[in-house]
Amino acid sequence: MLLYGYFRSSAAYRVRIALNLKGLPYDQTFVHLAKLEQLSDSFAAINPQKLLPVLVADDGSQLTQSLAIIEYLEETHPAPALLPKDPVGRARVRALAMAVACEIHPINNPRVLRYLTGTLGVTEEQKDAWYRHWVEDGLQAVEKLLVSSPATGRFSHGDTPTLADICLVPQVANGRRFKCDFSGCPTVMRIEAECQKLEAFAAASPPRQPDAE
Amino acid sequence: MLLYGYFRSSAAYRVRIALNLKGLPYDQTFVHLAKLEQLSDSFAAINPQKLLPVLVADDGSQLTQSLAIIEYLEETHPAPALLPKDPVGRARVRALAMAVACEIHPINNPRVLRYLTGTLGVTEEQKDAWYRHWVEDGLQAVEKLLVSSPATGRFSHGDTPTLADICLVPQVANGRRFKCDFSGCPTVMRIEAECQKLEAFAAASPPRQPDAE
Repeated sequence: MLLYGYFRSSAAYRVRIALNLKGLPYDQTFVHLAKLEQLSDSFAAINPQKLLPVLVADDGSQLTQSLAIIEYLEETHPAPALLPKDPVGRARVRALAMAVACEIHPINNPRVLRYLTGTLGVTEEQKDAWYRHWVEDGLQAVEKLLVSSPATGRFSHGDTPTLADICLVPQVANGRRFKCDFSGCPTVMRIEAECQKLEAFAAASPPRQPDAE
Repeated sequence: MLLYGYFRSSAAYRVRIALNLKGLPYDQTFVHLAKLEQLSDSFAAINPQKLLPVLVADDGSQLTQSLAIIEYLEETHPAPALLPKDPVGRARVRALAMAVACEIHPINNPRVLRYLTGTLGVTEEQKDAWYRHWVEDGLQAVEKLLVSSPATGRFSHGDTPTLADICLVPQVANGRRFKCDFSGCPTVMRIEAECQKLEAFAAASPPRQPDAE
């Protein structure tokens, strides 16, 4: 398989973790988001959404949207499972994943930040405060979901890593870059530290990618 | 089942369509987003994310995040299917759904618009232009995904409605309210019109909800 990624893309980071957890080998090709290579005609021909990641599957299918890609990996390579077996547990894990992937990450996407500083003319300071607001507010909601449920274990759901952890760890990494205040979410941070002990997570981290700067 | 919703919440609208397509009866209770009832302590106790929808399943489980809820309905009530059978097709449908649910809708969430007009002090005109920008840009990307694939049929994927259509229709409805320009996405509009012919979609529309104003 071939992954179109970028070391700092947290959506690509999610897919790297999932591939590693499942022990699936993959090659990477890099699209430099800071240089706006995702807006090039050549990349738009691969993904009209002009977003990372894209996974080229073994049959040549070009898959987009990180959560859709990870569900595909789960269906085609079920072990180890990244979702629990029971429907209510699966719904909980997907909701935790989407509390990051739908409620935090999109609002801080580079194209949104460019609209803020470009079209709306907000200052760098206001942009950074925006970024921190959505990370801190969003992760505090995740914290409440975690502490209020007996299903939370060593990881977000039980004692093995799931799709929820796969979304959580890259979001915390992004939050660190923008110096977010994580004091409101100790359980999130405890789980993130547990994940980092696993080589599948550590090997997927931005500094360990070939295109890291 | 009991759905916490609001007639104009497009995430609740998605769940209403899915319940209707599957022929599942449900009751509704309403959380008035414009009156900020979602921020109340009583609702935050139900969903710490302070977001709609919440579905109370038959076993009493409180499920959040519309796409996680619909995947739960798909797993517990498989017919009629809202996802195709083959993994690549399922990945395509989920990616189309997320091209709306992760890339358009969150950026135009009421709390984001409140941050723009409140904290950042942008004008109503700038806020409306922001809204239209993300809808138009996002639906044009969906359009390209649709026209570039032979899998597109009467609906977004083949000739029966899927999760992709369930996300598309409420997004178009929101876009209409903000007078978006849909001229760049004729296939999106053709599919939206096909969906509206189905009572499952029509009965889920905002004007037909008991709390419609």
